[in-house]
Amino acid sequence: MLNKIITISRQFGSGGRTIGKEVAERLGIPCYDHDLIDKAAEESGLSREYVAERGEYAQRDSWLTSVMASGGWYTGLSNQDLLWTVQKKIILDIAEKGPCVIVGRCADYILKDTANCLRVFIHADMDFRADRIVNLYGESADSPQKRLKEKDKRRAAYYKFYTDAEWGDVNNCHMALDSGALGIEKCVDVICEVYRDMPDKD
Amino acid sequence: MLNKIITISRQFGSGGRTIGKEVAERLGIPCYDHDLIDKAAEESGLSREYVAERGEYAQRDSWLTSVMASGGWYTGLSNQDLLWTVQKKIILDIAEKGPCVIVGRCADYILKDTANCLRVFIHADMDFRADRIVNLYGESADSPQKRLKEKDKRRAAYYKFYTDAEWGDVNNCHMALDSGALGIEKCVDVICEVYRDMPDKD
Repeated sequence: MLNKIITISRQFGSGGRTIGKEVAERLGIPCYDHDLIDKAAEESGLSREYVAERGEYAQRDSWLTSVMASGGWYTGLSNQDLLWTVQKKIILDIAEKGPCVIVGRCADYILKDTANCLRVFIHADMDFRADRIVNLYGESADSPQKRLKEKDKRRAAYYKFYTDAEWGDVNNCHMALDSGALGIEKCVDVICEVYRDMPDKD
Repeated sequence: MLNKIITISRQFGSGGRTIGKEVAERLGIPCYDHDLIDKAAEESGLSREYVAERGEYAQRDSWLTSVMASGGWYTGLSNQDLLWTVQKKIILDIAEKGPCVIVGRCADYILKDTANCLRVFIHADMDFRADRIVNLYGESADSPQKRLKEKDKRRAAYYKFYTDAEWGDVNNCHMALDSGALGIEKCVDVICEVYRDMPDKD
Protein backbone atom coordinates (compact mmCIF):
# COMPACT_ATOMS: atom_id res chain seq x y z
CA MET A 1 0.00 0.00 0.00
CA LEU A 2 1.33 3.45 -0.91
CA ASN A 3 2.10 5.88 1.89
CA LYS A 4 -0.26 8.81 2.28
CA ILE A 5 1.76 11.98 1.76
CA ILE A 6 0.71 15.62 1.81
CA THR A 7 2.75 17.82 -0.52
CA ILE A 8 2.46 21.55 -0.05
CA SER A 9 3.47 24.02 -2.73
CA ARG A 10 3.07 27.62 -1.72
CA GLN A 11 3.42 31.17 -2.85
CA PHE A 12 6.12 33.02 -0.93
CA GLY A 13 4.72 34.51 2.28
CA SER A 14 1.40 32.65 2.07
CA GLY A 15 2.00 30.67 5.26
CA GLY A 16 2.28 27.34 3.45
CA ARG A 17 5.21 26.24 5.57
CA THR A 18 3.40 27.09 8.80
CA ILE A 19 0.32 25.25 7.55
CA GLY A 20 2.44 22.21 6.67
CA LYS A 21 3.97 22.13 10.15
CA GLU A 22 0.63 22.48 11.91
CA VAL A 23 -1.01 19.83 9.73
CA ALA A 24 1.82 17.40 10.48
CA GLU A 25 1.64 18.10 14.23
CA ARG A 26 -2.09 17.58 14.29
CA LEU A 27 -1.88 14.34 12.30
CA GLY A 28 1.12 13.09 14.28
CA ILE A 29 3.32 12.64 11.20
CA PRO A 30 6.66 14.28 10.33
CA CYS A 31 6.94 17.48 8.29
CA TYR A 32 9.93 17.82 6.00
CA ASP A 33 11.00 21.33 5.20
CA HIS A 34 14.26 22.51 6.81
CA ASP A 35 15.19 18.86 7.44
CA LEU A 36 15.08 18.30 3.74
CA ILE A 37 17.50 21.17 3.16
CA ASP A 38 19.89 19.76 5.80
CA LYS A 39 19.81 16.28 4.27
CA ALA A 40 20.32 17.60 0.74
CA ALA A 41 23.27 19.75 1.87
CA GLU A 42 24.83 16.79 3.62
CA GLU A 43 24.41 14.39 0.70
CA SER A 44 25.40 16.81 -2.05
CA GLY A 45 28.32 18.46 -0.28
CA LEU A 46 26.80 21.84 -1.17
CA SER A 47 26.35 24.58 1.42
CA ARG A 48 23.07 24.81 3.33
CA GLU A 49 22.57 28.32 1.95
CA TYR A 50 23.03 27.14 -1.62
CA VAL A 51 20.56 24.29 -1.11
CA ALA A 52 17.96 26.52 0.53
CA GLU A 53 18.17 29.03 -2.30
CA ARG A 54 18.85 26.95 -5.37
CA GLY A 55 16.89 23.82 -4.54
CA GLU A 56 13.65 25.64 -5.19
CA TYR A 57 14.40 28.83 -7.09
CA ALA A 58 15.66 29.34 -10.62
CA GLN A 59 18.98 31.12 -10.56
CA ARG A 60 19.24 34.86 -10.62
CA ASP A 61 22.64 34.91 -12.30
CA SER A 62 23.46 34.03 -15.89
CA TRP A 63 24.01 30.72 -17.58
CA LEU A 64 27.74 31.44 -17.94
CA THR A 65 28.14 32.34 -14.29
CA SER A 66 26.41 29.14 -13.38
CA VAL A 67 28.58 26.96 -15.56
CA MET A 68 31.79 28.64 -14.43
CA ALA A 69 30.89 28.45 -10.77
CA SER A 70 29.55 24.94 -10.81
CA GLY A 71 32.43 23.12 -12.41
CA GLY A 72 29.95 21.96 -15.01
CA TRP A 73 32.73 21.83 -17.59
CA TYR A 74 34.17 18.83 -15.84
CA THR A 75 31.25 16.85 -14.43
CA GLY A 76 28.67 17.54 -17.09
CA LEU A 77 26.24 18.19 -14.25
CA SER A 78 25.68 21.68 -12.84
CA ASN A 79 25.40 22.14 -9.09
CA GLN A 80 21.73 22.88 -9.57
CA ASP A 81 21.16 19.64 -11.50
CA LEU A 82 23.18 17.71 -8.94
CA LEU A 83 21.01 19.24 -6.24
CA TRP A 84 17.83 18.29 -8.11
CA THR A 85 19.00 14.68 -8.33
CA VAL A 86 19.93 14.55 -4.65
CA GLN A 87 16.69 16.20 -3.52
CA LYS A 88 14.65 13.87 -5.68
CA LYS A 89 16.31 10.83 -4.16
CA ILE A 90 15.79 12.16 -0.62
CA ILE A 91 12.11 12.88 -1.29
CA LEU A 92 11.56 9.41 -2.76
CA ASP A 93 13.30 7.86 0.27
CA ILE A 94 11.27 9.91 2.74
CA ALA A 95 8.03 8.91 1.01
CA GLU A 96 9.02 5.27 1.23
CA LYS A 97 9.43 5.49 5.02
CA GLY A 98 5.88 6.49 5.94
CA PRO A 99 3.13 9.13 5.86
CA CYS A 100 4.40 12.70 6.12
CA VAL A 101 4.07 16.30 4.95
CA ILE A 102 6.62 17.65 2.48
CA VAL A 103 6.82 21.38 1.84
CA GLY A 104 7.97 22.64 -1.56
CA ARG A 105 10.81 21.29 -3.69
CA CYS A 106 8.55 19.86 -6.41
CA ALA A 107 7.61 16.93 -4.15
CA ASP A 108 4.15 16.84 -5.76
CA TYR A 109 5.75 16.10 -9.13
CA ILE A 110 8.46 13.79 -7.80
CA LEU A 111 5.95 11.59 -5.96
CA LYS A 112 3.15 11.60 -8.49
CA ASP A 113 3.52 7.92 -9.35
CA THR A 114 5.07 6.49 -6.20
CA ALA A 115 2.93 7.73 -3.30
CA ASN A 116 -0.71 8.35 -2.42
CA CYS A 117 -0.41 12.13 -2.44
CA LEU A 118 -2.73 14.91 -1.45
CA ARG A 119 -1.32 17.77 -3.51
CA VAL A 120 -2.03 21.15 -1.91
CA PHE A 121 -1.25 24.63 -3.18
CA ILE A 122 -1.40 27.57 -0.77
CA HIS A 123 -1.73 31.10 -2.11
CA ALA A 124 -2.89 34.51 -0.94
CA ASP A 125 -3.13 38.03 -2.23
CA MET A 126 -0.21 40.44 -2.23
CA ASP A 127 -1.34 42.50 0.78
CA PHE A 128 -1.69 39.48 3.05
CA ARG A 129 1.68 38.10 2.01
CA ALA A 130 3.50 41.44 2.12
CA ASP A 131 2.20 41.99 5.62
CA ARG A 132 3.35 38.53 6.70
CA ILE A 133 6.89 38.77 5.37
CA VAL A 134 7.41 42.19 6.87
CA ASN A 135 5.86 41.48 10.28
CA LEU A 136 6.74 37.83 10.80
CA TYR A 137 10.03 37.47 8.98
CA GLY A 138 11.30 40.99 9.45
CA GLU A 139 11.83 41.54 5.74
CA SER A 140 12.30 45.10 4.54
CA ALA A 141 9.08 47.07 4.38
CA ASP A 142 10.44 49.04 1.42
CA SER A 143 9.04 47.03 -1.44
CA PRO A 144 7.81 43.63 -0.22
CA GLN A 145 5.57 43.28 -3.29
CA LYS A 146 8.59 43.40 -5.56
CA ARG A 147 10.32 40.74 -3.50
CA LEU A 148 7.23 38.52 -3.50
CA LYS A 149 6.91 38.78 -7.25
CA GLU A 150 10.55 37.91 -7.78
CA LYS A 151 10.39 34.92 -5.42
CA ASP A 152 7.23 33.56 -7.05
CA LYS A 153 8.66 34.06 -10.51
CA ARG A 154 11.81 32.15 -9.64
CA ARG A 155 9.89 29.33 -7.93
CA ALA A 156 7.62 29.04 -10.97
CA ALA A 157 10.63 28.98 -13.31
CA TYR A 158 12.38 26.32 -11.25
CA TYR A 159 9.22 24.20 -11.18
CA LYS A 160 8.66 24.59 -14.91
CA PHE A 161 12.27 23.72 -15.73
CA TYR A 162 12.35 20.47 -13.76
CA THR A 163 8.75 19.29 -14.13
CA ASP A 164 7.65 20.84 -17.44
CA ALA A 165 4.39 21.74 -15.69
CA GLU A 166 2.93 25.04 -14.53
CA TRP A 167 3.46 25.92 -10.88
CA GLY A 168 0.11 26.71 -9.23
CA ASP A 169 -1.92 25.33 -12.14
CA VAL A 170 -5.23 24.30 -10.65
CA ASN A 171 -5.16 21.06 -12.66
CA ASN A 172 -1.94 19.96 -10.96
CA CYS A 173 -3.25 20.08 -7.41
CA HIS A 174 -6.09 18.49 -5.47
CA MET A 175 -6.75 21.53 -3.32
CA ALA A 176 -5.72 25.13 -3.74
CA LEU A 177 -6.50 27.27 -0.73
CA ASP A 178 -6.31 31.02 -0.23
CA SER A 179 -4.75 31.34 3.22
CA GLY A 180 -5.47 35.07 3.30
CA ALA A 181 -9.20 34.59 2.79
CA LEU A 182 -9.65 31.34 4.75
CA GLY A 183 -7.08 31.96 7.47
CA ILE A 184 -4.14 29.72 8.36
CA GLU A 185 -6.11 27.67 10.92
CA LYS A 186 -9.00 26.92 8.57
CA CYS A 187 -6.55 25.74 5.91
CA VAL A 188 -5.06 23.36 8.50
CA ASP A 189 -8.55 22.09 9.44
CA VAL A 190 -9.55 21.45 5.85
CA ILE A 191 -6.32 19.69 4.84
CA CYS A 192 -6.48 17.42 7.92
CA GLU A 193 -10.12 16.60 7.25
CA VAL A 194 -9.48 15.64 3.62
CA TYR A 195 -6.33 13.71 4.49
CA ARG A 196 -8.07 11.62 7.14
CA ASP A 197 -10.66 10.41 4.64
CA MET A 198 -8.28 9.76 1.77
CA PRO A 199 -8.81 6.23 0.49
CA ASP A 200 -5.86 3.84 0.43
CA LYS A 201 -4.06 3.13 -2.83
CA ASP A 202 -1.92 0.23 -3.95
CA MET B 1 -23.50 43.74 6.30
CA LEU B 2 -22.80 41.99 3.00
CA ASN B 3 -24.58 38.73 2.24
CA LYS B 4 -22.45 35.58 2.34
CA ILE B 5 -22.55 34.04 -1.10
CA ILE B 6 -20.86 30.93 -2.47
CA THR B 7 -19.99 31.17 -6.15
CA ILE B 8 -19.09 27.95 -7.91
CA SER B 9 -17.21 27.89 -11.18
CA ARG B 10 -16.63 24.44 -12.55
CA GLN B 11 -15.08 22.48 -15.35
CA PHE B 12 -17.69 20.73 -17.46
CA GLY B 13 -18.57 17.33 -15.98
CA SER B 14 -16.73 17.93 -12.70
CA GLY B 15 -19.89 17.77 -10.60
CA GLY B 16 -19.75 21.45 -9.63
CA ARG B 17 -23.49 21.88 -10.12
CA THR B 18 -24.29 18.84 -7.96
CA ILE B 19 -21.89 20.12 -5.31
CA GLY B 20 -23.54 23.56 -5.39
CA LYS B 21 -27.00 22.04 -4.92
CA GLU B 22 -25.91 19.80 -2.04
CA VAL B 23 -24.04 22.63 -0.31
CA ALA B 24 -27.11 24.84 -0.55
CA GLU B 25 -29.40 22.10 0.77
CA ARG B 26 -27.13 21.40 3.70
CA LEU B 27 -26.79 25.09 4.56
CA GLY B 28 -30.50 25.77 4.05
CA ILE B 29 -29.96 28.50 1.48
CA PRO B 30 -31.11 28.70 -2.15
CA CYS B 31 -28.99 27.52 -5.08
CA TYR B 32 -29.29 29.42 -8.33
CA ASP B 33 -28.45 27.50 -11.44
CA HIS B 34 -31.36 26.60 -13.71
CA ASP B 35 -33.47 29.28 -11.97
CA LEU B 36 -30.99 31.82 -13.16
CA ILE B 37 -31.39 30.65 -16.74
CA ASP B 38 -35.18 30.87 -16.45
CA LYS B 39 -35.03 34.38 -15.02
CA ALA B 40 -32.56 35.56 -17.67
CA ALA B 41 -34.70 34.11 -20.46
CA GLU B 42 -37.77 35.81 -19.08
CA GLU B 43 -36.14 39.22 -18.65
CA SER B 44 -34.23 39.23 -21.93
CA GLY B 45 -36.92 37.76 -24.12
CA LEU B 46 -34.35 35.26 -25.42
CA SER B 47 -35.08 31.56 -25.57
CA ARG B 48 -34.17 29.34 -22.64
CA GLU B 49 -31.88 27.31 -24.92
CA TYR B 50 -30.05 30.41 -26.07
CA VAL B 51 -29.56 31.60 -22.49
CA ALA B 52 -28.34 28.18 -21.29
CA GLU B 53 -25.85 27.97 -24.11
CA ARG B 54 -24.73 31.52 -24.68
CA GLY B 55 -24.88 32.88 -21.15
CA GLU B 56 -21.77 30.95 -20.23
CA TYR B 57 -20.07 29.84 -23.44
CA ALA B 58 -18.30 31.83 -26.11
CA GLN B 59 -20.04 31.37 -29.42
CA ARG B 60 -19.12 28.63 -31.81
CA ASP B 61 -20.16 30.51 -34.92
CA SER B 62 -18.46 33.49 -36.51
CA TRP B 63 -18.54 37.16 -35.72
CA LEU B 64 -20.55 37.86 -38.85
CA THR B 65 -23.12 35.18 -38.07
CA SER B 66 -23.48 36.65 -34.63
CA VAL B 67 -23.98 40.19 -35.86
CA MET B 68 -26.43 39.15 -38.54
CA ALA B 69 -28.42 36.96 -36.20
CA SER B 70 -28.50 39.32 -33.29
CA GLY B 71 -29.70 42.46 -34.99
CA GLY B 72 -26.54 44.10 -33.73
CA TRP B 73 -26.58 46.50 -36.66
CA TYR B 74 -29.60 48.21 -35.19
CA THR B 75 -29.29 48.07 -31.42
CA GLY B 76 -25.52 48.28 -31.04
CA LEU B 77 -25.84 45.45 -28.52
CA SER B 78 -25.53 41.82 -29.57
CA ASN B 79 -27.83 39.24 -28.03
CA GLN B 80 -24.86 37.91 -26.11
CA ASP B 81 -24.05 41.34 -24.67
CA LEU B 82 -27.71 41.90 -23.84
CA LEU B 83 -27.73 38.55 -22.07
CA TRP B 84 -24.57 39.46 -20.12
CA THR B 85 -26.23 42.70 -18.93
CA VAL B 86 -29.41 40.92 -17.93
CA GLN B 87 -27.60 38.07 -16.16
CA LYS B 88 -25.40 40.54 -14.31
CA LYS B 89 -28.40 42.46 -13.04
CA ILE B 90 -30.15 39.24 -11.95
CA ILE B 91 -27.05 38.04 -10.10
CA LEU B 92 -26.63 41.39 -8.34
CA ASP B 93 -30.32 41.33 -7.34
CA ILE B 94 -30.10 37.74 -6.06
CA ALA B 95 -27.02 38.59 -3.99
CA GLU B 96 -28.86 41.54 -2.47
CA LYS B 97 -31.68 39.29 -1.25
CA GLY B 98 -29.71 37.00 1.02
CA PRO B 99 -27.11 34.24 1.36
CA CYS B 100 -27.12 31.71 -1.48
CA VAL B 101 -25.09 29.54 -3.84
CA ILE B 102 -24.68 30.66 -7.46
CA VAL B 103 -23.33 28.23 -10.03
CA GLY B 104 -21.39 29.56 -13.01
CA ARG B 105 -22.18 32.63 -15.10
CA CYS B 106 -19.17 34.66 -13.88
CA ALA B 107 -20.93 35.32 -10.56
CA ASP B 108 -17.54 35.36 -8.80
CA TYR B 109 -16.48 38.32 -10.92
CA ILE B 110 -19.84 40.08 -10.90
CA LEU B 111 -20.07 39.99 -7.09
CA LYS B 112 -16.47 40.66 -6.24
CA ASP B 113 -17.15 44.08 -4.73
CA THR B 114 -20.76 43.79 -3.61
CA ALA B 115 -21.00 40.55 -1.62
CA ASN B 116 -19.03 38.54 0.92
CA CYS B 117 -18.14 35.76 -1.49
CA LEU B 118 -16.53 32.39 -1.07
CA ARG B 119 -15.23 31.80 -4.59
CA VAL B 120 -14.93 28.09 -5.35
CA PHE B 121 -13.59 26.37 -8.47
CA ILE B 122 -14.34 22.67 -9.03
CA HIS B 123 -12.20 20.67 -11.41
CA ALA B 124 -11.27 17.04 -12.09
CA ASP B 125 -9.23 15.03 -14.51
CA MET B 126 -10.49 14.01 -17.94
CA ASP B 127 -11.25 10.38 -17.05
CA PHE B 128 -13.45 11.28 -14.09
CA ARG B 129 -15.34 13.88 -16.08
CA ALA B 130 -15.70 11.78 -19.21
CA ASP B 131 -17.11 8.96 -17.13
CA ARG B 132 -19.59 11.30 -15.48
CA ILE B 133 -20.96 12.90 -18.63
CA VAL B 134 -21.38 9.53 -20.32
CA ASN B 135 -22.91 7.68 -17.38
CA LEU B 136 -24.88 10.43 -15.65
CA TYR B 137 -25.89 12.69 -18.50
CA GLY B 138 -26.07 10.07 -21.21
CA GLU B 139 -23.71 11.94 -23.50
CA SER B 140 -22.20 10.06 -26.40
CA ALA B 141 -19.39 7.73 -25.40
CA ASP B 142 -17.70 8.32 -28.73
CA SER B 143 -15.33 11.14 -27.81
CA PRO B 144 -16.33 12.66 -24.48
CA GLN B 145 -12.80 14.09 -24.05
CA LYS B 146 -13.21 16.16 -27.19
CA ARG B 147 -16.53 17.49 -25.94
CA LEU B 148 -15.10 18.31 -22.52
CA LYS B 149 -12.20 20.20 -24.06
CA GLU B 150 -14.50 22.20 -26.30
CA LYS B 151 -16.86 23.07 -23.45
CA ASP B 152 -14.01 24.16 -21.17
CA LYS B 153 -12.43 26.19 -23.93
CA ARG B 154 -15.65 28.04 -24.64
CA ARG B 155 -16.35 28.67 -20.94
CA ALA B 156 -12.82 30.01 -20.51
CA ALA B 157 -13.19 32.25 -23.57
CA TYR B 158 -16.54 33.59 -22.34
CA TYR B 159 -15.08 34.30 -18.90
CA LYS B 160 -12.01 35.98 -20.35
CA PHE B 161 -14.08 38.14 -22.69
CA TYR B 162 -16.40 39.51 -20.01
CA THR B 163 -14.10 39.63 -16.98
CA ASP B 164 -10.64 40.04 -18.55
CA ALA B 165 -9.43 37.41 -16.06
CA GLU B 166 -8.36 33.80 -16.48
CA TRP B 167 -11.00 31.17 -15.76
CA GLY B 168 -9.69 28.68 -13.20
CA ASP B 169 -6.71 30.84 -12.24
CA VAL B 170 -5.86 29.85 -8.71
CA ASN B 171 -5.42 33.51 -7.76
CA ASN B 172 -9.04 34.26 -8.62
CA CYS B 173 -10.60 31.74 -6.27
CA HIS B 174 -10.52 31.04 -2.54
CA MET B 175 -10.71 27.27 -2.92
CA ALA B 176 -10.09 25.06 -5.89
CA LEU B 177 -11.07 21.45 -5.30
CA ASP B 178 -10.48 18.34 -7.38
CA SER B 179 -13.81 16.54 -7.17
CA GLY B 180 -12.35 13.44 -8.80
CA ALA B 181 -9.66 13.06 -6.15
CA LEU B 182 -11.62 14.29 -3.12
CA GLY B 183 -15.04 12.96 -4.10
CA ILE B 184 -18.24 14.99 -4.45
CA GLU B 185 -19.29 14.50 -0.81
CA LYS B 186 -15.95 15.63 0.63
CA CYS B 187 -16.07 18.76 -1.53
CA VAL B 188 -19.51 19.50 -0.08
CA ASP B 189 -18.21 18.95 3.48
CA VAL B 190 -15.24 21.24 3.00
CA ILE B 191 -17.17 24.08 1.35
CA CYS B 192 -19.84 23.98 4.10
CA GLU B 193 -17.18 23.99 6.81
CA VAL B 194 -15.37 26.99 5.36
CA TYR B 195 -18.61 28.86 4.67
CA ARG B 196 -19.88 28.42 8.24
CA ASP B 197 -16.76 30.08 9.65
CA MET B 198 -16.52 32.92 7.15
CA PRO B 199 -16.27 36.20 9.01
CA ASP B 200 -18.86 38.89 8.32
CA LYS B 201 -17.96 41.83 6.09
CA ASP B 202 -19.42 45.30 5.81
